Amino acid sequence: MTGREGGADLSPIGEFDPVVILVRPQLAENIGTTARAMANGGLFHLRIVAPRDGWPQERAWHASSGAYRILDEARVYDTVDEATADLHRVFATCPRPRHVIKPVMTARGAAAELRVTANRGLRTGILFGPERAGLDNEDMARADTLVRYPLNPQFMSLNLAQAVLVMAYEWYLTEDITPPRDLMTNETHIATKGELNNFMTHLIRDLDDCGFLKNEQKRPGMVRNLRHFFNRGEVTEQELRTLHGVVSELSSARKVRS
Amino acid sequence: MTGREGGADLSPIGEFDPVVILVRPQLAENIGTTARAMANGGLFHLRIVAPRDGWPQERAWHASSGAYRILDEARVYDTVDEATADLHRVFATCPRPRHVIKPVMTARGAAAELRVTANRGLRTGILFGPERAGLDNEDMARADTLVRYPLNPQFMSLNLAQAVLVMAYEWYLTEDITPPRDLMTNETHIATKGELNNFMTHLIRDLDDCGFLKNEQKRPGMVRNLRHFFNRGEVTEQELRTLHGVVSELSSARKVRS
Repeated sequence: MTGREGGADLSPIGEFDPVVILVRPQLAENIGTTARAMANGGLFHLRIVAPRDGWPQERAWHASSGAYRILDEARVYDTVDEATADLHRVFATCPRPRHVIKPVMTARGAAAELRVTANRGLRTGILFGPERAGLDNEDMARADTLVRYPLNPQFMSLNLAQAVLVMAYEWYLTEDITPPRDLMTNETHIATKGELNNFMTHLIRDLDDCGFLKNEQKRPGMVRNLRHFFNRGEVTEQELRTLHGVVSELSSARKVRS
Repeated sequence: MTGREGGADLSPIGEFDPVVILVRPQLAENIGTTARAMANGGLFHLRIVAPRDGWPQERAWHASSGAYRILDEARVYDTVDEATADLHRVFATCPRPRHVIKPVMTARGAAAELRVTANRGLRTGILFGPERAGLDNEDMARADTLVRYPLNPQFMSLNLAQAVLVMAYEWYLTEDITPPRDLMTNETHIATKGELNNFMTHLIRDLDDCGFLKNEQKRPGMVRNLRHFFNRGEVTEQELRTLHGVVSELSSARKVRS
């Protein structure tokens, strides 16, 4: 199957980006939503081991929100051994490992390790188990590292695409440089302190005119409080223009009334 | 509706934990999967503004994987203003803000800010828009902070529950102390270096016996390489017992053959 025409224009694929390996997935819809979650986080290599209902399945493409290329290029294998034969490191997601002695990492720790390993030119993969049972002990014996997400221990149940999304999101974040906090300012500009002070002068003059600041003892504190309020964060030039207009209109309305 | 019997035993609810506010959600299934994602990350307060198909809807409980308590206790409002009236800070998730001048944070940055704000005893909420259109400009004017997830810019499309999961996961991580890397050792013990050395002595003795180390010039390097290999990571007592057995069996087999 070549998939349907169209689909999202995904970004360039890194040769050593981790491979997502779905082990014995049951529902084609979940393979499609997995592809969508992979695309969200910039993971593009998909391998499928022994899909219960065979492959390809049109329903996967339907459920992928346009992540067709990932599905078009997915490779299918009979066993985990075949699906991992060319990889250097294999991670296995696993909410409740039992009777297993193996390094276990958080999603964030694993993502950092995957990035470092990719940067060394090694090929990595991440195993995700079937929907109901998860990976079995034979699968986990093929992995060198387990991944367990820190989540509410009383409610760990994630569906397959959600499990993939958390890993893909953490992978994306390992190279993301978005500041944790920024000011969104589309098509406008932040006002300078001089422009802000022009407005404060306008405001204080009109407040003096109307008598709001007539108590000479309280005046300095009241003015300072207003300065604190208007200096609380960045103000845009557009907002300052609006504020000038508000003050002018309010004071002219007062003059008309009086 | 009191929900169905059973459902997961979720964990205790913090009074100041953020409220998830679904604005005009369309599908009841998505409200259910949202509750599941909330439970994953330890968020338990759900409010719903003007659900398209009314409320309650049995399908939400079906889709929640047992997160019934969140749905049982969800509160429904007609408007965003009513749903946020008692909150001190309102965040709005918003993949592509346009013509909006507002602080914008990553999911991780917002989670840290939500935690700090909760610790100050202030009530916070996070707005999530309807499935197709997202939040509109009127909704966003009610928020004091926007949240935009760092994701593949060519494929930002997340479904509602996935958007909630990322935020809930980041919320959970703000107080999580799981080390990024650990050794999973259920019901077993890490061997001491003394125990490991006993095994090395056993191995080297048998290798000497069989002549594998007979080249006196190469012997120190070969032994050192073996020590490096067996010291690469932590070894469990059980694994050492198995290794002792492997060496003993191999060398006794050799003795029988020879």
